[in-house]
Amino acid sequence: MTKNNEHIVLYATFQHEPVNYSNREMKSACSLLLCKAASYDYNAPTMRQSALFTKTRRDAPKDEVAKNAQLLIRAGYINKEMAGVYDFLPLGLRVLERINAIIREEMNRIGGQEILMTTLQQKELWEQTDRWSDSAVDSWFKTKFKDGGEVGLGFTHEEPLTSIMRSHISSYHDLPKLVYQIQWKFRNEERAKSGIIRGREFLMKDLYTFASSEEEHGKLYETVAAAYERVFARLQLGERTYRTFAGGGVFSKYSHEFQCLSDVGEDTIYVSKKKRIAVNKEVMNEEVLADLGLSERELSEEKAIEIGNIFSLGTRFSKALGLHFKDRAGKQKDVVMGSYGLGPTRLMGTLAEVFSDEKGLVWPPAVAPFAAHLIAITGGSRDVSAEADRLYELLQENGIETLYDDRDMRAGEKFTDSDLLGIPKRLIISEKTMAEGGVEVISRADGLTTFVSENDLIEHLER
Amino acid sequence: MTKNNEHIVLYATFQHEPVNYSNREMKSACSLLLCKAASYDYNAPTMRQSALFTKTRRDAPKDEVAKNAQLLIRAGYINKEMAGVYDFLPLGLRVLERINAIIREEMNRIGGQEILMTTLQQKELWEQTDRWSDSAVDSWFKTKFKDGGEVGLGFTHEEPLTSIMRSHISSYHDLPKLVYQIQWKFRNEERAKSGIIRGREFLMKDLYTFASSEEEHGKLYETVAAAYERVFARLQLGERTYRTFAGGGVFSKYSHEFQCLSDVGEDTIYVSKKKRIAVNKEVMNEEVLADLGLSERELSEEKAIEIGNIFSLGTRFSKALGLHFKDRAGKQKDVVMGSYGLGPTRLMGTLAEVFSDEKGLVWPPAVAPFAAHLIAITGGSRDVSAEADRLYELLQENGIETLYDDRDMRAGEKFTDSDLLGIPKRLIISEKTMAEGGVEVISRADGLTTFVSENDLIEHLER
Repeated sequence: MTKNNEHIVLYATFQHEPVNYSNREMKSACSLLLCKAASYDYNAPTMRQSALFTKTRRDAPKDEVAKNAQLLIRAGYINKEMAGVYDFLPLGLRVLERINAIIREEMNRIGGQEILMTTLQQKELWEQTDRWSDSAVDSWFKTKFKDGGEVGLGFTHEEPLTSIMRSHISSYHDLPKLVYQIQWKFRNEERAKSGIIRGREFLMKDLYTFASSEEEHGKLYETVAAAYERVFARLQLGERTYRTFAGGGVFSKYSHEFQCLSDVGEDTIYVSKKKRIAVNKEVMNEEVLADLGLSERELSEEKAIEIGNIFSLGTRFSKALGLHFKDRAGKQKDVVMGSYGLGPTRLMGTLAEVFSDEKGLVWPPAVAPFAAHLIAITGGSRDVSAEADRLYELLQENGIETLYDDRDMRAGEKFTDSDLLGIPKRLIISEKTMAEGGVEVISRADGLTTFVSENDLIEHLER
Repeated sequence: MTKNNEHIVLYATFQHEPVNYSNREMKSACSLLLCKAASYDYNAPTMRQSALFTKTRRDAPKDEVAKNAQLLIRAGYINKEMAGVYDFLPLGLRVLERINAIIREEMNRIGGQEILMTTLQQKELWEQTDRWSDSAVDSWFKTKFKDGGEVGLGFTHEEPLTSIMRSHISSYHDLPKLVYQIQWKFRNEERAKSGIIRGREFLMKDLYTFASSEEEHGKLYETVAAAYERVFARLQLGERTYRTFAGGGVFSKYSHEFQCLSDVGEDTIYVSKKKRIAVNKEVMNEEVLADLGLSERELSEEKAIEIGNIFSLGTRFSKALGLHFKDRAGKQKDVVMGSYGLGPTRLMGTLAEVFSDEKGLVWPPAVAPFAAHLIAITGGSRDVSAEADRLYELLQENGIETLYDDRDMRAGEKFTDSDLLGIPKRLIISEKTMAEGGVEVISRADGLTTFVSENDLIEHLER
């Protein structure tokens, strides 16, 4: 058991042979490394808890009122800089990147092309769409260049992307296109009391579609909606999430929100659980009910978190900024646009709210920072330590993403930490389990305890 | 050949079977997808050029004077928002993410733990280290919350990380630690004329080390220096990059810069090519020469780009912010810190400067957006189209990352674009090569042309 962290650094430094820089070998070494790390491993696929720099804490900061942030701070996943402004620590970044990876896959699957736009936003561009002044948009953060010129921090990116697309769209041959980014946004919120569910600085996946007609746009809109539903299903939020009719704009009667039922939600919606649709209270009236063929009787009022939204923009931005194309007949037309938001940090906060109990977090396996939490209860026995080390190696070799609690601490403290961290499977090895030739596997979600022999362990975990 | 992009979207949407959300299947589906995408594929591992939304352009914007940005803009890798502020488009983001992946691997290898801190910075914290006022730091961007409170945009992150570590370091058992992030920084530069080599908004990998003594710090410092050298070697910048002695601070006589020789560099250094070290002109004097055992005769004056720096911080930040630990004797001490910067966007700009010719970019294979550029010269022949499609599938099946120029354009235009994009291997298929049962493979770096039979193609490319 490596107790001194210096050993770990040195081990990590020297375990690799001197690197051979020939292209081929490097390429295969890299792809091996990355493939091992792929399914979600932003950092290493496995880790000794004695090396992890974060520690759990008993209490959240007094000014933190949101359950999601309280739990995530106590478990060492995030750190609070200011209200609505949070750092992501190693375990938190792993969860966030797994959410990002799922979103990225689903966006790429529908033909989305990923880019990364800037935070700094030029005034002149946003003036052309009348969204620069603080009276039009009240959540801008603005700052100044040294020469005095004003510049904003992006809270959304319709303007810059529409401007970029002017260089790349000129004909109907160039349409449709789906372009997205996963990028930090800044909103000067007056209140930010919902932890990472409502940040002043928050991560957003924003996708924009460009179509040659309303009809083509309609197809893209439904394609994106379906992709969003796949994202929510993979995050185990599908069943409690409803496509919700909300206010439209000049170009469409409604927009759609994806509202996830939760007591801490800031929105109130009317839900038809049978028809699996909902209406936001803000637009709820007779006309909407008639449009949707709903009667008030079949609806229940619920609190919900808006975890995604999709919006038809029509030609609002393309007209203002001059994004045109020539149609088949050679006639110049404005591009028809849509805009689609998903918040990875908000999703992470929602998961922490929905999947947690009085003891701590209970991550869905798809986003958990590790699949297994190996806990050695040595009681001072070197045999147990050695056996736990061996098991850790076995898990590593089989690509089971494992956090290994190799710390010199009492069993009760380790279990309390483990409950708080919320890794799906806890594997306990002790003198008792060793005598029986296996480990105790406890499922964090339902507390179910199974004794699994060492021979069956990998298969059991891969199930 | 799919010409209408709508087909591609639908194909991408429907090529997958309806997703089965059982954990196990999802997990294996995901890891397959991600493993395929792993070695560098931020977006899809292969792509039809007809689907790619970016187009090349003949001229860079008139106000763009840096060669790196001129080429990258013309090739559609980046877009200029403002001086020193650039968006990364699909091909550019792929290159940037490959650079990030290399850096991440080398940081993880030495035990670095990745986190992500915030852009918004609280005034109170920076006042404690005397780095808030504009007289102390002249490159701040600052903005305001609605209640009037000032907040800065991070230009570096010693303060917030030192503050975070107070919750996680209390004993010598907790040391050493290496913590890093890859994150966008903001600096209010007066002039920004070097393209993505000097941005007002730029990506930085900043690592910080925490040690219990100067001796332990010294070891970490050299460990990080070695990791940096591995990064530069993998980017093919190793030979022209010199560890350069530069100004230190209160806690060390020198800091070290990694200076990459280039005519566009903003720094002047004195290089000993034989001893593979250099001295920054800013500190060059008799004393430095004596310290390093160098004589002026063996040095040549060179222009260079600072692509990395490593810096001993001593206890400057730990003392100011109260980051202490108890040593073995139970005595309270200040943590000894180091700070280490590497700029992925600057590295990308440097690569574009160093690896390019009059025709365009010439990416090193380790960071190229694709490994192969398959170009179909159909001359209207359906047979050639069909054969090119088949070859594209073969390349996909074998995991060769390929951009497939399936556009309906003249050969000359395709070649000009291909030269500009700079993908390492160009594969040409035409009626002529079909008749001979293979493809022409042209290496972008040296123009070497080889005829390769279809049977040998995959092996040839993997070589």
